[in-house]
Amino acid sequence: MNSFGRIFRVSLFGESHGPVVGVLIDGCPPGISLSPYDFKADLERRKPGKTGTTARIEDDVPIILSGVFEGKTNGAPLAITFENNQQRSSDYDKNKFIPRPGHSDFSAHFKYKGFNDFRGSGHFSGRLTTPLVAAGVVAKKLLGLIKIEARIVEIGGVANYEEVLNIAIQSGDSLGGIVECIISDVPIGLGEPFFDSVESVLAHAVFSIPAIKAIEFGRGFESAKITGSLMNDEIIGYEGKTTTNNSGGVNGGISNGNNIIFRIAVKPTSSISKAQNSIDIRTGEHAELITKGRHDACIALRIPPVLEAVSAICIADLILLNKVY
Amino acid sequence: MNSFGRIFRVSLFGESHGPVVGVLIDGCPPGISLSPYDFKADLERRKPGKTGTTARIEDDVPIILSGVFEGKTNGAPLAITFENNQQRSSDYDKNKFIPRPGHSDFSAHFKYKGFNDFRGSGHFSGRLTTPLVAAGVVAKKLLGLIKIEARIVEIGGVANYEEVLNIAIQSGDSLGGIVECIISDVPIGLGEPFFDSVESVLAHAVFSIPAIKAIEFGRGFESAKITGSLMNDEIIGYEGKTTTNNSGGVNGGISNGNNIIFRIAVKPTSSISKAQNSIDIRTGEHAELITKGRHDACIALRIPPVLEAVSAICIADLILLNKVY
Amino acid sequence: MNSFGRIFRVSLFGESHGPVVGVLIDGCPPGISLSPYDFKADLERRKPGKTGTTARIEDDVPIILSGVFEGKTNGAPLAITFENNQQRSSDYDKNKFIPRPGHSDFSAHFKYKGFNDFRGSGHFSGRLTTPLVAAGVVAKKLLGLIKIEARIVEIGGVANYEEVLNIAIQSGDSLGGIVECIISDVPIGLGEPFFDSVESVLAHAVFSIPAIKAIEFGRGFESAKITGSLMNDEIIGYEGKTTTNNSGGVNGGISNGNNIIFRIAVKPTSSISKAQNSIDIRTGEHAELITKGRHDACIALRIPPVLEAVSAICIADLILLNKVY
Amino acid sequence: MNSFGRIFRVSLFGESHGPVVGVLIDGCPPGISLSPYDFKADLERRKPGKTGTTARIEDDVPIILSGVFEGKTNGAPLAITFENNQQRSSDYDKNKFIPRPGHSDFSAHFKYKGFNDFRGSGHFSGRLTTPLVAAGVVAKKLLGLIKIEARIVEIGGVANYEEVLNIAIQSGDSLGGIVECIISDVPIGLGEPFFDSVESVLAHAVFSIPAIKAIEFGRGFESAKITGSLMNDEIIGYEGKTTTNNSGGVNGGISNGNNIIFRIAVKPTSSISKAQNSIDIRTGEHAELITKGRHDACIALRIPPVLEAVSAICIADLILLNKVY
Repeated sequence: MNSFGRIFRVSLFGESHGPVVGVLIDGCPPGISLSPYDFKADLERRKPGKTGTTARIEDDVPIILSGVFEGKTNGAPLAITFENNQQRSSDYDKNKFIPRPGHSDFSAHFKYKGFNDFRGSGHFSGRLTTPLVAAGVVAKKLLGLIKIEARIVEIGGVANYEEVLNIAIQSGDSLGGIVECIISDVPIGLGEPFFDSVESVLAHAVFSIPAIKAIEFGRGFESAKITGSLMNDEIIGYEGKTTTNNSGGVNGGISNGNNIIFRIAVKPTSSISKAQNSIDIRTGEHAELITKGRHDACIALRIPPVLEAVSAICIADLILLNKVY
Repeated sequence: MNSFGRIFRVSLFGESHGPVVGVLIDGCPPGISLSPYDFKADLERRKPGKTGTTARIEDDVPIILSGVFEGKTNGAPLAITFENNQQRSSDYDKNKFIPRPGHSDFSAHFKYKGFNDFRGSGHFSGRLTTPLVAAGVVAKKLLGLIKIEARIVEIGGVANYEEVLNIAIQSGDSLGGIVECIISDVPIGLGEPFFDSVESVLAHAVFSIPAIKAIEFGRGFESAKITGSLMNDEIIGYEGKTTTNNSGGVNGGISNGNNIIFRIAVKPTSSISKAQNSIDIRTGEHAELITKGRHDACIALRIPPVLEAVSAICIADLILLNKVY
Repeated sequence: MNSFGRIFRVSLFGESHGPVVGVLIDGCPPGISLSPYDFKADLERRKPGKTGTTARIEDDVPIILSGVFEGKTNGAPLAITFENNQQRSSDYDKNKFIPRPGHSDFSAHFKYKGFNDFRGSGHFSGRLTTPLVAAGVVAKKLLGLIKIEARIVEIGGVANYEEVLNIAIQSGDSLGGIVECIISDVPIGLGEPFFDSVESVLAHAVFSIPAIKAIEFGRGFESAKITGSLMNDEIIGYEGKTTTNNSGGVNGGISNGNNIIFRIAVKPTSSISKAQNSIDIRTGEHAELITKGRHDACIALRIPPVLEAVSAICIADLILLNKVY
Repeated sequence: MNSFGRIFRVSLFGESHGPVVGVLIDGCPPGISLSPYDFKADLERRKPGKTGTTARIEDDVPIILSGVFEGKTNGAPLAITFENNQQRSSDYDKNKFIPRPGHSDFSAHFKYKGFNDFRGSGHFSGRLTTPLVAAGVVAKKLLGLIKIEARIVEIGGVANYEEVLNIAIQSGDSLGGIVECIISDVPIGLGEPFFDSVESVLAHAVFSIPAIKAIEFGRGFESAKITGSLMNDEIIGYEGKTTTNNSGGVNGGISNGNNIIFRIAVKPTSSISKAQNSIDIRTGEHAELITKGRHDACIALRIPPVLEAVSAICIADLILLNKVY
């Protein structure tokens, strides 16, 4: 259940305050050059450090445990870990019994019957997006000419968001945002009608990223408001080129050769410094909670490389699958 | 690739103008009472007949080929077919070489190298939602007290949509709409953090339904515009009850005991009677297209039972999976 | 659970005394010519009619429900059914409560809590090997130059078995046998070290055929008795050609370019006319059983085309998988 | 492809001469007590040190990277690694171009286009059975009262094998053997008719263990030589108890409540000190090979704990799967 992909298969492991977080990648073809240095750019983009991001900064040095020989993938499963060195578990003692509103604390406690590692959200932590980005780095190597770029569209409802962000930070609050991803130079024919449409596969992966609450392809929710004659993309080239791209590069679940475009909604970080109402799960009684720990006031700021990573994982898998035809 | 589910596993087969469409369901526990009559209500809701829906009306009588013995599921795979009797293939000859804008014609032709059954969109047809609804009927039997209800929120951007719908029909155009689904009395703990979150599983299935371009859970895209203190759902009961339900019943990918709520965008039907520009795929030259055939001016009107069906399939699977703990 | 294959994915459905038995095949590439006539030869080989086989003879006319358009596979899932016309359910009433020794009656009853279709063994029937052979026919079309041939090595312990077979038949008893399968012109490199070795995949499929109790590759059980210097196959050609083929064409789980050779043990049919001891599952009391119904005295005689079919399914899947590299 | 199991899902990673070998286990329920000490007994049984086993002895200290919190499984994926400290890569330089007869050298080189880690057989090494045994230790914790015991039946064809073993060692040769496994107190109803029979699942896993060439259940190959009246196990108890156990505890692919019994053939180690003929894969020319490196003269001696491990993994998975009914 905790794996993704049919051929290029990614499994995450590790907890926020355990010794490591890591990823196991199966199905990566042999002969792909891979060194720890390859991961640097995307991991740096994911790292906190800017206004609105957490004070916990890890080194994020990838340790390649297997699957690489003399600088190239060797066809065997690829395991990569990252040490956790900067955790401060004492911050989290309270979360054991008083679940943070909007957070996985409550649902995880019940699902795992109280045995889950609650420190820093355990396996539910945003920390797990580090190995996810690492898997994306490997996936990007399989994409050839295909390019994937994600960018922030707005934070807290505005495009130039510095001011609203500072206000949120100063008031101990948090903000969400919208991130757009464009996948260009996609071959025609990726995806399946039932049930592995391109949108199905991308949405499946995207909703694994913590804090995502919505996704729309092409014209998205707007497409529900316009007529077919406005929505349909007229075809003008043998290779499927269309005048508009309202369908976001996918028809009938299959890529049509145009850019795949989608936007996602990232909710505001649920861990805030303002007082909130919760309960003590031992007693069921009301408890007031002021979350400590080091948190991102706006996790959306760090989402673009993560979104590119999961998109790359999806497209790499769909490309490998398409080779069987 | 053309299956869905881990335990309760659904595979669709058939083409719009082939002899049948059908579904194979694996993993259905034995001892569930099941007769053709059980399918009647949901299939009737899916049927066309109302203003804005197609003139092709099939009988939709389920033929149970296997998996039922003396009126009860017997633990073996369940195969159900529906005969296609009302197809009129001559309507579709033009689609073989002149792909309809916004439709799967072009991408399917390339994916399957021209071998796809293009008549009535073949395996990509909305006709395949008949066996999908049938699978949902079986899934609903596994849900116990859980209820699933989908309803139309708006068509063409308005809640009372009769007028805009008539205008679209008279002008040979089409309209989309927004459909909301509420799953109530959900147990706490369904779903997995990576990669089978409740949102991942539902979105995966939902984006298999033809014409869906967006999905949002709880507050959805709005959550990107508000602060954490407004977004977080304060917890007020031992069983996870919250004051608000902005997260749509899911935290950290796991159901939290509140209603699961999501909305989807259904694009306007791509087959319209207005002239549109396309190409002839034999020559790459421009071709004008006026789509014939019997089509829904607003397929969104028929989506609610289909959306309930895929939701039921997802929840049934997650419930069976959760039994292993 | 009731599917097999990663890419070329086969699911069986139907019960011995239900309306049909059938198969759903996903992942078959488009453009493969396929007509009902293609199935004739292998289905004829599987049919009873010879000494030692059952008196129930079905027409075995394949009905292609989906996945074929204008005589070629169209890329969509392929569903094929066979009608059951010759069942005689009254023969089996006794099996409902008095399980036949050596048969699935007892274990199936408990697994499915008494809801299983017990007539003619239901979904456990050898009748299900009809659609399995059909899937093999499709798989063989994907094999190119690879050939698969299975033959009977011995029945009841002897190579020229006519006499022992007649004795068994006359005494109302049954016999087993050994069947060998040779897959030639196999490309190097099929299979995976952990856990999808060529032997793993073949054995998995083979042990789905009813009545199989053993499998050995190459020198098999004899390899446990000889030294490495006798067992090792010396390599004499660039393309992997070896002097001997004790390893049966597989090293480290990967095909090495030599013939894949394996033998299987088929146990004697468990349904015999001699009196046997069993229990009445309603009371737990002793019950004597003389099995009626029409049975094969030696099911091994009909296994070769079935063994070829499952081998073809395995190799087709491994070949498609290998294309991703 | 390199994973095994539906619910209790095991993936191996690592190469013989890489930094670690390891295992990732998904689907392990929370709340199972687990400490490094738990692994000691089975890992000791697997270790070399006795006559006929390799001189490379690793410490085999399990490092639990994830999935355990405060001494208990926490529901998240469980990653366990073992450091490789005693590798001596210089021994293997020759294998890069001159494949050892009977070994994976040749097939792996071609499969992975020369990028495979050839040192000590890389990912194909028997070293990988260390994390496999570790996964078995976790699986055994899920088995409740079920017991699994494997034992050596014979080496080189004889039960009291000390003498033949010494002769083989002195002549630089190797020997195989037969190992039997008995799984007792198995619940009725594990397994599926098509395609996940108990035999299918066990055989699939068993043929992942390096050097296995055959498997037989119950009476196995002998069942092909006897009559049905001798083969059938008469049923004498309500709970499925039979007088004999010729079917090895499985009927129709489903466990019948009696002991599951099977035997496997382990071929002699292919790495021997005697001169053998091979080719140089750069030139295709003949090359004589005398294998250096430290090898087991009889790997069968170390197989019992490995066979128990894969059996435990299979049964744990089947038990978890059976909970969904």
